[in-house]
Order: sequence, then C-alpha cells, then structure tokens
Amino acid sequence: MESLRPKISRSVIPRLSVYCRALVAYKDSGVISSDKLSELTGRTAAQIRRDIAYFGQFGTPGKGYVVEELKKRILEILGINRIWDVALVGAGNLGAALLSYKGFKEQGFNIAAAFDNDRNKIGKKLRNVPIRHIKELSRVVKNKKIQMAIIAVPAEEAQKVIDTLLKNGVRAILNFAPIRPAGGASTEIINIDLSIELEKLAHFLNRPK
Amino acid sequence: MESLRPKISRSVIPRLSVYCRALVAYKDSGVISSDKLSELTGRTAAQIRRDIAYFGQFGTPGKGYVVEELKKRILEILGINRIWDVALVGAGNLGAALLSYKGFKEQGFNIAAAFDNDRNKIGKKLRNVPIRHIKELSRVVKNKKIQMAIIAVPAEEAQKVIDTLLKNGVRAILNFAPIRPAGGASTEIINIDLSIELEKLAHFLNRPK
Repeated sequence: MESLRPKISRSVIPRLSVYCRALVAYKDSGVISSDKLSELTGRTAAQIRRDIAYFGQFGTPGKGYVVEELKKRILEILGINRIWDVALVGAGNLGAALLSYKGFKEQGFNIAAAFDNDRNKIGKKLRNVPIRHIKELSRVVKNKKIQMAIIAVPAEEAQKVIDTLLKNGVRAILNFAPIRPAGGASTEIINIDLSIELEKLAHFLNRPK
Repeated sequence: MESLRPKISRSVIPRLSVYCRALVAYKDSGVISSDKLSELTGRTAAQIRRDIAYFGQFGTPGKGYVVEELKKRILEILGINRIWDVALVGAGNLGAALLSYKGFKEQGFNIAAAFDNDRNKIGKKLRNVPIRHIKELSRVVKNKKIQMAIIAVPAEEAQKVIDTLLKNGVRAILNFAPIRPAGGASTEIINIDLSIELEKLAHFLNRPK
C-alpha cells in the first residue's frame, strides 16, 4: 500500500482536487493531454505535469494520461476512493446548508450523524439525517468510528465540541466557528472564518492603488 | 491618507483580523502587552510585534500598545472602520445561512441586496433582506454602488453572475461555487470550495503515518 500513498506536499492537494474534478467531468474517455487538462482547470500544463510527476512515471510523453488510470490514482492519493462518514455538529442555518450541499455526497463524504442542543431540532430529520442531542456525540462518534467532523456551532461552544470529538477518535475537523481551536499533533483542523475572508476583500478595496 | 494605508503583505491580513477580534473582545481597556495579545490569539508575541511594527512605530517598549489606538489603526488598515454593502447572489440554503451569519454585521458587512432566480423566493424577505430577481442584479448593484459580493449559486451559473457583477462595479467577491472563476487584474476573488477542504482532510486521514 505504501506506493499508492506517497507523501505529497500539502500545497499540491488542492490542485489534485481540481484535476480530479475535471477528470470526473471529462466525458471523452481515453487519453487526456496536459494541455487539455490545462484548458479545463486553468492551471498551466507545466504545473500539471510537475504535479502529476510527483507520484511517479505516469502517462505517455507526447500523448497524455489515460483518463481512468489518472483519475483512479488521484482518488487513491486524496483518500476519496471510499466513503468517509462525517459528523456534523450544529444544525443551525449553516449546518442545514452544509447538510444540503450536494458536492459532499458526490465526493464521497457522507454526513452520518448530526447534533444540536436545540430541543426544537432534536429528533427531527434534515435531509434524511436525524438530529441528535449533543449529549450523544461521544457515544455515536465512537460507535460509528467516525474520524471526520464539521463544526458549525457558536464560537463559545466550539472548543468543548472539538475536545469531545478528539477524545472519541475524530482526527480531522472542518471548523466554521470563528476561533482558532487547539488540536493536537495527530489532528488536522481546517478553520474557515468567513468574516476574515470578507476582511481580506475589504482590505483589497481599501488599499492604496 | 496614504500613511493610514501602508502596503501590507497579504499574509499579514488574516492575522490582523485575529488581533482585531481579540482587541474588540478585550474589556480591560488601557494598555495591552504583546504577551497578553499572544495569550488571547495563540500567536507568538514576537510574531505580533513584527506584524504590528509593519505599520510604523507603535506602542511603548516594555509596556505595550494602547488598546483603542491599536484597534483603530488595525480597523483602518483592514478597511473595516466603515460599513461595506455586500450583494448576495443565491438565496438557497447556503445563501440563507450567510444572511443569518451574525459575524458579518458585527464586522461591518451589510448584506444590502439578495438575488435569486427561484420564483418562490423572489419578493420574500430573508432576515429582513428582500430577495430580488437575478435580472435586477446589474441595476441594483450599479445604483447602490456595491463593490463587494458573495456568490452562492450552482457551479454552472457562477461565471455568468461574476461577469455581470464585474461589469457593474463589483471588485471583490467571495465565491462559494466550486469553479475557479476568471476575474481581472483589478479584481479580488476569494474561492471557498468546501469539497476541496474535506478532500484535504481525507488526504490527511489517508496518508502514510
């Protein structure tokens, strides 16, 4: 298995996601050139060849890559040649939006359980996923062996939720709460802070020309 | 005005946002040391001093920064010492979640207009913001002189929406559609692709240890 999962620089991963998406959408199976892939993804052909060369000899010089092989290889490397169960904590507006987000299911991410502390929500279903009481979080995550979670709770509750998740086997978290949570060395937490993104835009509009 | 808005490296901006948030939450007005700010933000005191030194002599060595002055200066630099009107395009689940996101208003971002192409939504209000037909996008953005927009439409509609916005004076866009849109030199587009973020997590869980 080692050879299927070479250590790849973190900066390459988002680009592999983009190539993968283009390959999945590419109906004309057979062979694809780096020029064609460049046209579909907006990355330069040189960059694409360099990124793909990372994981060994691949493709036929002058012709291109066999679409199915390349797709399979990238899916393996990204770890999305399987279904990942995901716990969603927080079923408010943002949580509901994430539950409805088609892209997750398409890419192999299955929201297996949702949690909230609002009595009006608990017991109801959202997009066919039952919403459970936050008290059940430890038990369900452990029983279902869930390793990945999405946090969409208010800032003041986020660190406690993250601590509970990490204690029960979750190792990868997508966090929308506007805090910089403390994790651990064997944990990956990606923070998406929407206000900070808007502030970057404000700074762009405001800067001297 | 030039001196108020020095050219600051893009990588510093998200950290300034973090410092700013800590300063706003810091009730004990007066003076704050870089050590205290470090404790509140999880950044090292050395990094904080370096980042703040970017915009000139500031604070008293050995004592710290005057909270109000520092806050005011960072707000100016980030361009959030004012209200920014924002157009929201797409009032589906994600759009509704963004409309309800308290953080935006708190940071000075005002969703001044929302647009959709769904007849069932048009004319209704969401969080007090009326939803208009997408056909009105050009006119409203131009009339209200809106410079900033959030895109929460399906992938296949995103580029057209972005082209319309750019043609009508919008220069800064936060895009949630899973495409890499074409912009222009005087335009800032920040793409948030949630599937790509989950794929990074999957790769983390999948990689050789």
